[in-house]
Amino acid sequence: MNYRMIFHTTGKVALVLAALLVIPMILSASLLESCWWAFAITIGVSLIIGLVLVLSLKPKSNVFFSREGLIIVSLAWVYVSLIGALPFVISRAIPSYIDALFETASGFSTTGATILTGDQIENMAKGLLFWRSFTHWIGGMGVIVFVMALVSGASDRSMHILRAEMPGPTVDKIVPRARTTAKILYALYIGLTIAEIIALIIAGMPVFDSVVHAFGTAGTGGFGIKADSIASYNAACQWIITVFMILFGVNFNVYYLLLMRKFRSAFSSRESWIYGGLIIVSVTVVAINITNTNNPDLLYAKSVGDGIRHAAFQVASFLTTTGYSSIPASSSLNALPLLTKGLLFVLMFIGGCAGSTAGGLKVSRVALLGCAVRKELKRVLNPRNANAVKFEGKIVSEETLRGVTAYFGLYMFIIVATFLVLCFDGAEGLSVEANITAAVSCVNNIGPAYGKVASGYYMYNPLSKLVLTLAMILGRLEIYPLLLACSPLTWTKR
Amino acid sequence: MNYRMIFHTTGKVALVLAALLVIPMILSASLLESCWWAFAITIGVSLIIGLVLVLSLKPKSNVFFSREGLIIVSLAWVYVSLIGALPFVISRAIPSYIDALFETASGFSTTGATILTGDQIENMAKGLLFWRSFTHWIGGMGVIVFVMALVSGASDRSMHILRAEMPGPTVDKIVPRARTTAKILYALYIGLTIAEIIALIIAGMPVFDSVVHAFGTAGTGGFGIKADSIASYNAACQWIITVFMILFGVNFNVYYLLLMRKFRSAFSSRESWIYGGLIIVSVTVVAINITNTNNPDLLYAKSVGDGIRHAAFQVASFLTTTGYSSIPASSSLNALPLLTKGLLFVLMFIGGCAGSTAGGLKVSRVALLGCAVRKELKRVLNPRNANAVKFEGKIVSEETLRGVTAYFGLYMFIIVATFLVLCFDGAEGLSVEANITAAVSCVNNIGPAYGKVASGYYMYNPLSKLVLTLAMILGRLEIYPLLLACSPLTWTKR
Repeated sequence: MNYRMIFHTTGKVALVLAALLVIPMILSASLLESCWWAFAITIGVSLIIGLVLVLSLKPKSNVFFSREGLIIVSLAWVYVSLIGALPFVISRAIPSYIDALFETASGFSTTGATILTGDQIENMAKGLLFWRSFTHWIGGMGVIVFVMALVSGASDRSMHILRAEMPGPTVDKIVPRARTTAKILYALYIGLTIAEIIALIIAGMPVFDSVVHAFGTAGTGGFGIKADSIASYNAACQWIITVFMILFGVNFNVYYLLLMRKFRSAFSSRESWIYGGLIIVSVTVVAINITNTNNPDLLYAKSVGDGIRHAAFQVASFLTTTGYSSIPASSSLNALPLLTKGLLFVLMFIGGCAGSTAGGLKVSRVALLGCAVRKELKRVLNPRNANAVKFEGKIVSEETLRGVTAYFGLYMFIIVATFLVLCFDGAEGLSVEANITAAVSCVNNIGPAYGKVASGYYMYNPLSKLVLTLAMILGRLEIYPLLLACSPLTWTKR
Repeated sequence: MNYRMIFHTTGKVALVLAALLVIPMILSASLLESCWWAFAITIGVSLIIGLVLVLSLKPKSNVFFSREGLIIVSLAWVYVSLIGALPFVISRAIPSYIDALFETASGFSTTGATILTGDQIENMAKGLLFWRSFTHWIGGMGVIVFVMALVSGASDRSMHILRAEMPGPTVDKIVPRARTTAKILYALYIGLTIAEIIALIIAGMPVFDSVVHAFGTAGTGGFGIKADSIASYNAACQWIITVFMILFGVNFNVYYLLLMRKFRSAFSSRESWIYGGLIIVSVTVVAINITNTNNPDLLYAKSVGDGIRHAAFQVASFLTTTGYSSIPASSSLNALPLLTKGLLFVLMFIGGCAGSTAGGLKVSRVALLGCAVRKELKRVLNPRNANAVKFEGKIVSEETLRGVTAYFGLYMFIIVATFLVLCFDGAEGLSVEANITAAVSCVNNIGPAYGKVASGYYMYNPLSKLVLTLAMILGRLEIYPLLLACSPLTWTKR
């Protein structure tokens, strides 16, 4: 195990975190908010840790394998969550460290689950609100990808790291060098984010709100600054956010291909078409389901236009695992009709496309799971002659299918384990429905849940909050890195 | 496709069904119940269909492959459900044919979900109650297995049929010949059932009740004859049923090995040990969870002894997918503490051992899923050197792992699809929790569900009832036969 390399890279992550924290500190200071010094202290802590690690532990060799990659990614994510939570605690905005950790991990993992009540969010200092949403933006594309894009010295082996942090069953290198790939991804990410900020400002949203919500959309996170999420903004803003949620759920390779004018390749992505089809079907079903009912809870969707807008917003929000809501807080998710609730719950599992910032299983993994099932059905019919299956125009290897089906099994185990801990720890008034949707929501990095949790996660006990924190990071890293970093398999000598 | 063979065998099934219906008819007639003629008419119908098929379509060849086996099993199960429902409709005990079909499919598939209310059950004629529970007993070991045990002429190829109907990821032939295997299985099944009837009578249960509940336990079905299931019988009866539920959830091969005095082989079954461990852990957790609380809904478990008894009963009932309840109807499943509800919900997915009469995924399949995950974790760590995994002392083949993981994916698809239809069709007052537990309960052949469905399935609309009927048969046959029989894959010429 290349320990020096591991700690050296973690040191770089610490330095980058310190640098990123400067932005909310300047914002706080310029707004004369007292919380600026909470950022200053945190910057100092991360700077010291980073310098000690980087300067004292120069790696002797650049050689490392996938297990080093998995451990680096896990350490980086645990580090930014642990230290990123400090400003909330030091400023007393979130006095409990466990709560602050939950909120920060929820931010970096782009979950958007909150332990704050609506009032607490609306009364929070702007610098802290900015940091809270900024974590979404950083976590969306990846902490390590960011470090790789900024800091040189990454070897060709660093694809191991990129692979461990990027979502989806397979990672295509856009270009041969990992560092260049990381830079291209961040350039696209920044471009799309700026486009959304400008669009929101033109549509009439205040500048600060636009920036924060663009961060939340870009990372498919879902933290907002209002008790009713996006519900109180105008229809144009809601439509813009809907469109950008959908855009950030697409594989970024598609945008790169479009920029390179490789239109045929870009439009041949089967995953994107399935993703689009899923959105159209789901929006249609939800729109019909919520419009024109006499249900007093659904008056906000009285006209067809309003119905389609809310349907598109909610479907995009759940499928891309963002978690924003266009529904007034007074009529919460629980008041939605049964079919809409059921469908949104199923969409939670699917998530966006591989190589996007979205969470969930990913559309391509669900499609590959379908391929594996189809192949097995053929095998049952005719054991000796199982045909190969194709996806994205290529024959899917046995190895890929095995990887996807085993991942699905592991993923369900993690959801079930999280659910059982929530039931064991069970706070007052929680139901099976609340706990199951909370577990699914956190593992898939969505945020909202049904039942009592529809109003937030504040009622959970500390054990539940810690387990959900772990579930969110596990989900964001697609389970393997963090699980293997804690497994004896990784640490036994070979 | 060997159509003659398929219809000839279906004809044999029709004749056997007619013969089996004679028993409830004689019972009804001897009790001077008017419903005896409902059985007589059904016997006539099935006799005519059977004779026409058997006499007119003599198979020209005995050759058939797995697809013929899958179609025969599917046809047989659809046939017995469709015709077995007639006595309920003709006697006007269940006037709606869809309701009667649901009840009969629930019986044969050993689910035990009912569309009857407690009052309706208690007022039903004994002949019909007997038939309702007898379907559990027939369906438990398998309709076709029964036909094979009785009727000669089955070729060596008939292992295809046995494999399609027997639960579990792999089927071991006890002896080389399929027919002899079927006979041994039924002999063990009858022996254990008689042992339970005698034990229940000794413990003070009336004879009729003992027979009916032994049928319900043997098939791991769950139909009873009281509104409160087993709650109003004495503690000894509840313990006897608990023990037999657990016994019927064990692979029948183990009993055969015990009879053959191959004790070492019998006790080396890893699956049985996992199954036993799961029961002990779950009973401990539930017992602690329900005993000695001040919850007014749990007064029936006030003492430690009562707590352990109810915990053992409920855990055995859910894990073996029987579905009986020892909890007084006044405090329904919904009043159980959250951890117990959550744990029982998870047990629903697991089910009993392969080669038992239990439903669910089966313990061995869950264990193999764990093997697949472990193997994949090793592969992520070290892509070039993935070690083989072992289960039951043997190296698990790639093919078995692929089969199990693909099955798990398909199984979850079926549950999700059933859940979405229930939400779409959504009757008044149903929640996400009710629909999700109903879908899981029916696909896994358990019966009870949470929320409003805890009192029965009568509130569902006809579409939901039909889909749940299909889900129960799919679950009992472990999806492939019925799915493939309806798939173009099977019917395209090669």
